[in-house]
This record gives sequence, C-alpha cells and structure tokens, in this order.
Amino acid sequence: MLLKTEKEFEIRFSEVDSMGIVWHGAYPLYFEDAREKFGKEFNLEYLYMFEHGFYAPLVELHFEYKRPLKYKDRAKIEIAYRNTDAAKLIFDYTIRSLPDNQIVASGYSVQVFLDKTFNLMWELPEFFKKWKNFYLK
Amino acid sequence: MLLKTEKEFEIRFSEVDSMGIVWHGAYPLYFEDAREKFGKEFNLEYLYMFEHGFYAPLVELHFEYKRPLKYKDRAKIEIAYRNTDAAKLIFDYTIRSLPDNQIVASGYSVQVFLDKTFNLMWELPEFFKKWKNFYLK
Amino acid sequence: MLLKTEKEFEIRFSEVDSMGIVWHGAYPLYFEDAREKFGKEFNLEYLYMFEHGFYAPLVELHFEYKRPLKYKDRAKIEIAYRNTDAAKLIFDYTIRSLPDNQIVASGYSVQVFLDKTFNLMWELPEFFKKWKNFYLK
Amino acid sequence: MLLKTEKEFEIRFSEVDSMGIVWHGAYPLYFEDAREKFGKEFNLEYLYMFEHGFYAPLVELHFEYKRPLKYKDRAKIEIAYRNTDAAKLIFDYTIRSLPDNQIVASGYSVQVFLDKTFNLMWELPEFFKKWKNFYLK
Repeated sequence: MLLKTEKEFEIRFSEVDSMGIVWHGAYPLYFEDAREKFGKEFNLEYLYMFEHGFYAPLVELHFEYKRPLKYKDRAKIEIAYRNTDAAKLIFDYTIRSLPDNQIVASGYSVQVFLDKTFNLMWELPEFFKKWKNFYLK
Repeated sequence: MLLKTEKEFEIRFSEVDSMGIVWHGAYPLYFEDAREKFGKEFNLEYLYMFEHGFYAPLVELHFEYKRPLKYKDRAKIEIAYRNTDAAKLIFDYTIRSLPDNQIVASGYSVQVFLDKTFNLMWELPEFFKKWKNFYLK
Repeated sequence: MLLKTEKEFEIRFSEVDSMGIVWHGAYPLYFEDAREKFGKEFNLEYLYMFEHGFYAPLVELHFEYKRPLKYKDRAKIEIAYRNTDAAKLIFDYTIRSLPDNQIVASGYSVQVFLDKTFNLMWELPEFFKKWKNFYLK
Repeated sequence: MLLKTEKEFEIRFSEVDSMGIVWHGAYPLYFEDAREKFGKEFNLEYLYMFEHGFYAPLVELHFEYKRPLKYKDRAKIEIAYRNTDAAKLIFDYTIRSLPDNQIVASGYSVQVFLDKTFNLMWELPEFFKKWKNFYLK
C-alpha cells in the first residue's frame, strides 16, 4: 500500500528573494510542513515518536529545483513514504504549481532513529515495526 | 557608566526581499546578534543567566525603519544597556549603514526574568543585582 | 466601520526555539500573514498598491509578548485597520491561543507610501483615498 | 588547481530548534554564506554574474548531517569548486565543528546559467569560460 498525502500552500512575501522567486532555502520548510501533514494523517508525529523514546533526526536532505515559484503563486506538495528494510524513515516529495500541476521541485529526506541518550538504532524500534505492520501490510 | 558595544555585519542575499531591500522581519535577528555580542562582552549571556536559574524572555520589541538596507551593504548595529529600577532588562539599538554612518533603523527590547518554573520575578534576581553593581557603579 | 479579519494557524517546528517556545523573531511573519489576509479581503494587496504606483514599506513595528506559544499550539491572529488622517497605513494585531482564546501577543505596524522613485508621500495617494471612501464611510 | 576557501561561524540562538540542535533548515544559509565568501575571493559574485548578463540559480542541493551543532558551538564551512565540462557551477561543502575539526555535515550544490530572459544556457557563457581559464589553468 502506498502511503502518501499532500498539502496546498501559497507563497509568502517573506519567502521570495530579490530575483522575485522563492529562495531555495525556503524549501526545507515546505518539506517539513509536508512531514507534519503526513505525521498527522498516519500517526507518526515527532511527539508520538518521542513518547515512544525516540528522536528521528534528518541525516540526508535532497532538493531538485526545476521551475521557480513566485510571490502569490499557489502550489501543493506531495509526500510519499518510501519503504525500506533499513532502520530509516525515507520520504519523497514533489512540489507542483497550481492550477497547472507542473512539477516545480522534488526531493527526498532520510531520517534515522536515536534513543533518548542519542544512540543510533541499527534496527527498527519496536514502535516503528508496529507502525509499519499496521499501515503497510 | 554607559554600557554599550557594536557589531559590524554584511547584508546576506537571503535577507533581501523582492523589492531588493532587507525584509523587515530580518531585524529581530540583527538585534539578537547585538544582544549576543553584549552578553559576551559584559558577561550576560543566556547560558550564564540560565546557570543562575533564570530565563530572560523578550516581552517587548520595537523597530523603526528609516532607510532601506540592500544586498551587500555593510552596516553596524550599536546596542546600549538602558538602566531601570524595574526588574527588567532593556536595550536600545541603532543600526547604521557603513561607511556613511547614517541611521537606517533603531529600536529597543524589553526582557523580564522568569525562574526555572516560569514564575515572573517582580524584583531583580540576586545575580542581576550583583551584575549591576559590578558594571554600573 | 471597523475593518478587521483574522487567520488561524498552527505553530511549526521550525518556529520554536531551544526553550520550546516560539522564537520572538517568528512574529513578524505572523503579522505579515495577517496583512496578506487583510489585503486579500479588503483589496489592499502589495501588488494592487504597486499597480497604482506605490510601495508601502513598514516604518514601525511593535510587539508585546504576554504568553509563550509552543510547538503544535493552535492560535489565531486578528488584524484591524486603525484609521488615521496621516498618510500612513496602520494595523493593530492580537494573537490568541486556541481554543482558550487568551491573548498571547499584540502589536501594531505602521506603513508609509513611496512612489516608484521612492519619494515619500506626505499626503494620501489618490488610490488610497478612494479605498478609504469605499471601505470606511 | 583546487579552488577552495572556508569561513568560520558561530551558531546563533535563532538557528537552534527545540531539541537544542541546529535546525536542518539553517544549513542552506551556511552553504550560501560559503558561496558568498567564495564569490568574493574568486571574483564570482551574484552581482558580477548579473552584470555579465546571467543568473545562476540553484537547481540541486544536497545535505548530509553527521553530527549535531548546538547553540554557541563554533564551526567552519569549507567550500570547494568542483570542475566539470557541463554548463554548471558545482560546489562541495564540508562543515566542521571547532576546535576538534570533526565533520558535522557535508553536501553539494549545482547551479545553471540563465540569461536575462531566463533561457537556460546549454554551453558555458563566455564570461565563465574566461573565469575558468583564469583560475583553473
């Protein structure tokens, strides 16, 4: 089963640079907003993980910029869970301009699991195994 | 005795908006950088206050914008401690463009003291009385 | 007639500082979002003013912080147009936590009008007189 | 010849998240600061390219996070020009904590050249050929 969701947003004045387009450094925020949305829909929020004893810091983040977004543009970001056997949490992202639905950017993020004393988990934490069993089977 | 210091900085690309001038929302960061510099010089850093059992959150922040700053402009921010009998920490700021030294912005900030259970201090914490005695007399 | 509107929002992870509360420097963005919403509802967007030949840069910005907002908190920001005879555009803001509706912050902003060669307007631009006649009478 | 430079910096309070470490979304800014430094040293600043008729927007950006940085940590970022025959501008970055010099993050960025009507250049612009001849031979 494919786990994915999406979120619409509008470009803010503060996100646009002096060339009139969204500054590339604003995209990590769009990706984070998408992860929030995903976490809310599929019960995988930061606080939920933390209650189970784990942090899930980003270890890798990748962006490809294909077309610029401008002030007042409307866009949507799609986020999809990428399944893996590794003890990692990987998401793929696609940002599309609206209403024409053209791809403007894409990317992915990789998170690992740390316990509360900041040890890296080499195997999936139990809570996350259960999460996968529940949502992916 | 007047406690003050200053810091030079250069405008970053990411701080400039689509009109080619520094976005007004970047100035809180300049003020914070100035407080950092002050804290370092006059032994009043966040971590120092925290070690003495106190937070000093901002409760008021004021900006006046007189001239725009542009990408690559050089500027300096001056910060001065404003003495008061109240249990507050007040700073005045002036930002000047360089090398012409014209005022581009000014403002002030007000901080209060909270103990570690977030109770507001109505009187000066002991550590801050000592600080004032040391630096102001 | 009182011109005002409001906008709900949720605190993002990136807006929270190491004390677990919203960094004071995030509030200019909340205010700007409120101005956007106001502009959209009352036909006073940046681009609209620009098409009429004017910029409306911020010249004054004031914040009072009363209670902290935390990650995942829901809040709303209210924005109200403050009428004045001066050639200025003034807004008052109130941020309230939800659902308890308590005030967490307030403030105001002052904008002036510049023409496209960056001359300060000492009198109301025509387009803004018309706007006031339309919306305020 | 290897073109590279480096810049030291200190972690600001506003860059740290609620887990007490630098928010991943702050790193694009560190990379940009490094490009600025490089541009200044090797005569390849945004404005310089623009004067020659070209923009150089980012089309790809990649981060790997190995260790967290905390408030007040000192770090340095190294930037190196990666030579390529393609009509691209590629930089590699390494961020190291100080004074222990351990790698905390790395990554790369890819820029392309657009002319002033936003057409993608499939071949190196003349000014950039000259730049390469001057600096790389």
